[in-house]
Amino acid sequence: MIVEYISVGTEILLGNITNLNAAFLAEQFAKLGLTAYYQVSVGDSKARINECLDIASQRADIIVLTGGMGPSADDVTKESVAIFLGRTVNDDVIEGSDVLPNDFGNSHGEIITDSKRTYILLPGQFNEMKPMFMHYVLPYLEKNSDSVIITKTIKIAGIGEKEVEEEIKDLIRAHSNPSITIYPKSGEVHIHVTAKGADENECDRLNKPVVKELKTLIGEYIYTTEEEVSLEQSVVDLLKSNSLSVSTVESCTGGMVASRLINVAGVSEVLKTCYVTYSDRSKHKNLGVKKSTLQKYTAVSKETCEEMALASGISDKSDVYVAVTGIAGPDSPYPDKKVGLVYIGCNVKGKVEVREYHFKGDRTRVRECATTAALDLMRVCILKYIGETQFGIK
Amino acid sequence: MIVEYISVGTEILLGNITNLNAAFLAEQFAKLGLTAYYQVSVGDSKARINECLDIASQRADIIVLTGGMGPSADDVTKESVAIFLGRTVNDDVIEGSDVLPNDFGNSHGEIITDSKRTYILLPGQFNEMKPMFMHYVLPYLEKNSDSVIITKTIKIAGIGEKEVEEEIKDLIRAHSNPSITIYPKSGEVHIHVTAKGADENECDRLNKPVVKELKTLIGEYIYTTEEEVSLEQSVVDLLKSNSLSVSTVESCTGGMVASRLINVAGVSEVLKTCYVTYSDRSKHKNLGVKKSTLQKYTAVSKETCEEMALASGISDKSDVYVAVTGIAGPDSPYPDKKVGLVYIGCNVKGKVEVREYHFKGDRTRVRECATTAALDLMRVCILKYIGETQFGIK
Repeated sequence: MIVEYISVGTEILLGNITNLNAAFLAEQFAKLGLTAYYQVSVGDSKARINECLDIASQRADIIVLTGGMGPSADDVTKESVAIFLGRTVNDDVIEGSDVLPNDFGNSHGEIITDSKRTYILLPGQFNEMKPMFMHYVLPYLEKNSDSVIITKTIKIAGIGEKEVEEEIKDLIRAHSNPSITIYPKSGEVHIHVTAKGADENECDRLNKPVVKELKTLIGEYIYTTEEEVSLEQSVVDLLKSNSLSVSTVESCTGGMVASRLINVAGVSEVLKTCYVTYSDRSKHKNLGVKKSTLQKYTAVSKETCEEMALASGISDKSDVYVAVTGIAGPDSPYPDKKVGLVYIGCNVKGKVEVREYHFKGDRTRVRECATTAALDLMRVCILKYIGETQFGIK
Repeated sequence: MIVEYISVGTEILLGNITNLNAAFLAEQFAKLGLTAYYQVSVGDSKARINECLDIASQRADIIVLTGGMGPSADDVTKESVAIFLGRTVNDDVIEGSDVLPNDFGNSHGEIITDSKRTYILLPGQFNEMKPMFMHYVLPYLEKNSDSVIITKTIKIAGIGEKEVEEEIKDLIRAHSNPSITIYPKSGEVHIHVTAKGADENECDRLNKPVVKELKTLIGEYIYTTEEEVSLEQSVVDLLKSNSLSVSTVESCTGGMVASRLINVAGVSEVLKTCYVTYSDRSKHKNLGVKKSTLQKYTAVSKETCEEMALASGISDKSDVYVAVTGIAGPDSPYPDKKVGLVYIGCNVKGKVEVREYHFKGDRTRVRECATTAALDLMRVCILKYIGETQFGIK
């Protein structure tokens, strides 16, 4: 079955919004085993929507449209589809269509089937379209699909995309079903293992041995094989299962590590006070970093990072401290240290490990990469010093 | 002049990546006064790229393609365009094309002009495509354009999309050039005032009186009219110009307010230690919130928020404190308080204002909206209590 996606909205063509629907729907279609050859974006024009429908109907069995479903005069998707199919619109619904309720907004969706193909009309707002798709369209399409595609996601931190590729390139070459693809994802690397089969069981059977081989090759870098589990979730799970309390002491990341941990509902069990100590004064007064250390080695140094992680100035002790200090840019205050230099330290019950990182990119990118690296270092140090095994690796 | 954008890459059709190029290029085309009626995405297939070129060449003067420009066997964009135009490829360059250097990667771009239209081929990686477009393609297109479109962005916080629409709907109806459009943007609202004219001066002349009317109608909510200025930048500017030091004391936002402030390079001038006090114990020990207050009113209350903002437990004083405490979800620990309830307090030199908010959405969305609201409340309170005027509003 071939599917074509048409997104309607002049705002897309003016670049006023990023089309979030496109990647979401494309992924859903792929999971359903539907083949997509084209995606099209078009403005709120009946003539041009008609042209897109004309072209799409020559090359697809299912045509999905989003946007232009509201009540305003600009919204002409419904009318355009009705004209194209030679049907009328009564009470805001195309003749003969199934109405999809909108649980998060006002514009309903519609599914229309004629003898040759299916037209699915959805609202343009991602927050309304996504639940409508999941609740009403997905079951409909599943019923009508003859094969499924299942992707297993393997999430990796602490190693770059190129190194991952080098480690697993023979495995990639050796397999076509499942296929193995590598995606960089803001400081992490995700590997998709994607099988196509008659049903979910067959796909799982195909995926399983390949996932196992990946664990053998790069298991120490894998923090989860669950699509829904984030790096921060896996860190919080480790903290909880080992009954470890945690504090962050952050300079350049300025609260981003704390914020990522607090993404995880229920973190309150393990999280103690976190500190954003941006200035030398604050590092000294709150964390107990020695003035002499700051003077001799500067705030961005292995030595300062280590003392931050030791957190001798904090009276209310935690089991784990993670410390970040670095140069996020745009400029470096030190002639001999470059933007992107970051030290991250992790203290697990007094055992401290400090690592030096060199991140590339602008201020935001350096801070994001440092945050991800800090979370990963926590994971690695807890496993190393506390010793719970994960994926067979101590 | 009509432009059509074709993005090439099977990964787009599988939903493995979000096409960042599309919105960027669409915006650039609009600024140049080029008209875009369609955008198309297609996989790495010569036959299907050819079909897209065939359709696009019937409806556009300029055809821009991104992706599929690399050296691997999958990359067939160059070959497809060459076949379509009946040209050869020599030394990796289409016969008769101008080569665009890639300053950030390996795949070069190309511009090919025949008697009827122009084909512009760019790499698919956004980080490579964007600088190549800005440095080499933009000057080329500017030379060949007969009108320009200039958008003035007005950024608003502290008021919702619907309220903005209600306030300015008459203004929207009264103008077509410039047009006025409203966009919600993660807790903020942005208004685009877009004029089309012969040159930049004419557009500025058209935009100016409309921007002035908007300031009269909703000036108190506008934090900037500069595209490049973020809400955190405008807050840091206010802190700096009034020589005010600042600390954040955060519960549910967990470092996100601090992190947004630290987005601004040079914040070190004003930023003192920030605290993430997620537990009752931490609020009491670090900030000096009374145990009786926490017991009587709970951590999510006006009273606790006020004591957090007063920060009596912090010895190293700041001029401004911003405090956030709320229920981010997924569940509420209180039977009488719902997920999304957030109290935000701002203390400017001892004058404390606490506001109650009710945000909708999941954990991440509630925390993001609370962060934006906290930054806006800082802006409002500094203007109110310190009295620097901004946009004529005290």
